[in-house]
Amino acid sequence: MKYTERSRTDLLREQEECRAKYEELKARGLKLDMSRGQPGKEQLDLVSDILTVLADPADCVVDGTDVRNYGAFSGLPGAKALFAEILGCRPEECFIGGNASLNLMYDTISKAYTHGLLHSEKPWCRLEKVRFLCPSPGYDRHFRITESFGAELITVEMTPAGPDMDQVEELVKDPAVKGIWCVPKYSNPDGIIYSGETVRRLAGLKPAAPDFLLMWDNAYCVHEFEGDFVPFPDILSLCREAGNPDMVFEFASTSKITFPGAGISVMAASEANQKYMQKLTGVQTIGYDKVNQLRHVKYLKDRAGTLALMKKHAAILGPKYRMVLDTLEREIADLGIAEWQKPKGGYFVSVNTMDGIAKRTLALCRDAGVVMTPAGATFPYGVDPRDRNVRVAPSLPPVEELRQAMEVFCVSMRLAALEKLLG
Amino acid sequence: MKYTERSRTDLLREQEECRAKYEELKARGLKLDMSRGQPGKEQLDLVSDILTVLADPADCVVDGTDVRNYGAFSGLPGAKALFAEILGCRPEECFIGGNASLNLMYDTISKAYTHGLLHSEKPWCRLEKVRFLCPSPGYDRHFRITESFGAELITVEMTPAGPDMDQVEELVKDPAVKGIWCVPKYSNPDGIIYSGETVRRLAGLKPAAPDFLLMWDNAYCVHEFEGDFVPFPDILSLCREAGNPDMVFEFASTSKITFPGAGISVMAASEANQKYMQKLTGVQTIGYDKVNQLRHVKYLKDRAGTLALMKKHAAILGPKYRMVLDTLEREIADLGIAEWQKPKGGYFVSVNTMDGIAKRTLALCRDAGVVMTPAGATFPYGVDPRDRNVRVAPSLPPVEELRQAMEVFCVSMRLAALEKLLG
Repeated sequence: MKYTERSRTDLLREQEECRAKYEELKARGLKLDMSRGQPGKEQLDLVSDILTVLADPADCVVDGTDVRNYGAFSGLPGAKALFAEILGCRPEECFIGGNASLNLMYDTISKAYTHGLLHSEKPWCRLEKVRFLCPSPGYDRHFRITESFGAELITVEMTPAGPDMDQVEELVKDPAVKGIWCVPKYSNPDGIIYSGETVRRLAGLKPAAPDFLLMWDNAYCVHEFEGDFVPFPDILSLCREAGNPDMVFEFASTSKITFPGAGISVMAASEANQKYMQKLTGVQTIGYDKVNQLRHVKYLKDRAGTLALMKKHAAILGPKYRMVLDTLEREIADLGIAEWQKPKGGYFVSVNTMDGIAKRTLALCRDAGVVMTPAGATFPYGVDPRDRNVRVAPSLPPVEELRQAMEVFCVSMRLAALEKLLG
Repeated sequence: MKYTERSRTDLLREQEECRAKYEELKARGLKLDMSRGQPGKEQLDLVSDILTVLADPADCVVDGTDVRNYGAFSGLPGAKALFAEILGCRPEECFIGGNASLNLMYDTISKAYTHGLLHSEKPWCRLEKVRFLCPSPGYDRHFRITESFGAELITVEMTPAGPDMDQVEELVKDPAVKGIWCVPKYSNPDGIIYSGETVRRLAGLKPAAPDFLLMWDNAYCVHEFEGDFVPFPDILSLCREAGNPDMVFEFASTSKITFPGAGISVMAASEANQKYMQKLTGVQTIGYDKVNQLRHVKYLKDRAGTLALMKKHAAILGPKYRMVLDTLEREIADLGIAEWQKPKGGYFVSVNTMDGIAKRTLALCRDAGVVMTPAGATFPYGVDPRDRNVRVAPSLPPVEELRQAMEVFCVSMRLAALEKLLG
């Protein structure tokens, strides 16, 4: 029965029970981390063979290129082909980066500020005002990039179909609005897949800014942990068809396919964008680590090889997400104090509590030894106006630890709700 | 006998001989590349063991950190210790980057423009004018970074002891002069080691700009190809002692120790600078490739291990540089048409021809199948005001090819000089 429908006496009794349970859990002296989307050790062990896939000099030559030496600035053809097949774009639309797509995203925004993009009238650092759209809850590191450059962050509501497109279409009429952050498949943190209509409306935007930037972080493009691979449209084609060929920059990486922090990344964009950006990037680097690119090409081979590996990750991750969702269902669903999506991929479960108790919930968790992503982190400037969103990142701990962490989380949320309701 | 002291008849006969020799060389249909400081295959094969130094999960854990997962943003302690020992600075002054120190240099300048440095009054993009000192001949990629951001490049004369310090000390009185590019040991391309006095005067500069940037690219810190390792002072200590603790950013990498483009890099700077810059860099990346950092730590071990490897590189490189220097000595020295340093380390031999014939010399080379770094590349904006500097990069070709390439180069230079002298 919902808390809001219960009597005060009932709630007081519930509070006493919750307190007792909380104290009991706290006494266990837990030390559990669910703060970041980190793969667990079992997942890392899955990909050990990549360490030795290049074992001697002969392994390092591909298509006549010795990957141990300088050259192939924009990436190995094999690495471009791999990402193009996964994303559905063309190999010539791919630029292969280092160990983090975040770095490629930062560099894109940074170059927009210092040099301007292909269709910029001037570098953004010369503009009075730059605004950037942040569908929220979203990824804190995205928001922080644009914040760091001084852009004004505008919160856009997330719906179960992706960003609220009515709001987006209205906002882009402002020429100071220069772009939007998107995680289109298994969005961070909601785990939502943008609907076909949302994607089409994004590709067909008619922004006032000629250099509007659709930042398309396809971080979880092959990251199903439940069920089969879900195909997703190629945003580059959709933008091209909608007359916006140069509006989108798409990003992906192998951080959660092979090793986080030791994978390879891609920036996919129109050939006109590639030509323009690569001229700027050519000043910055002689090229990213091709030895590691070749490791990935030899190890993953192609989309089929990648999807086969992702099935193995899913076998490890699936039970963790089920543990989170089942515990929420069992402990919270009936109480009317929170809602959440039931994602089938990505790295998070996003819980929206009743207004005003997210911070308190996480403070209680922390006191009981369970660290979560700080409340507010999923909103621009780290401030959740309704103080209700909590990002649960269950990938790192083993299932048994997770069970305990979720018990702590649920009882903490109940306590916070009761405190609020009882005043 | 010097060309300038010979009779016209003599020179005409010499020209005929040179032409015949040139045509004979040209007829061989050579295709030789001495344009970039690339290690040769034999050098790459030296370090093959690094490919498999991490072979299974247990190898990937160091000091309790699993390098396959996220974390250790500023670099592995072992990687910091390795570079600190090599450079003579402190581990806590080191930030470990990706596969290219060039990228760290670019990012430093880029952040100066977008966010400002520790002692900047404002980001450089907000300034009317930024000037940058470019000791020339120098490294084209350095100059291009500052050029790309719109800085005005000021040429500073190189002397056998390093940049002309009288000129530098005068120029830094201008508050718009924001920094200087230096390759202090085996400078690119001259192969000069800055003298103790030059280094002390650089560390003790009193620039008008509070955020003056000493860009210290110690690219060839352990790169002797002749004789023993030459110790070199730690610039961070010298700047600290001179009251300029935050003025210098030092860079180095393993690009020419292990694999070019697949090594690791370092930015060394005062702890105050590290604190300031790492806050900015933390927005850009979660951290660079630690798996590759650990590969390098396990493979190189320490300074002694690194120097032992560099001795093996020297055994391959030494004969190549001797071939270049011996051929110049034999073919050119007596003619009075060029001068050059005789470096014992680094990656280049820099030849200053008589004025006005560098371009013509390299055009003749190219027509005979020998590609060199374009004339002018070693000066700001790619323009050598006296058209005389040629950068010879003999590391890639085998000695026998190099012998032929140097024959082409010398006869081309003689032809160009004769054309000039005969009018």
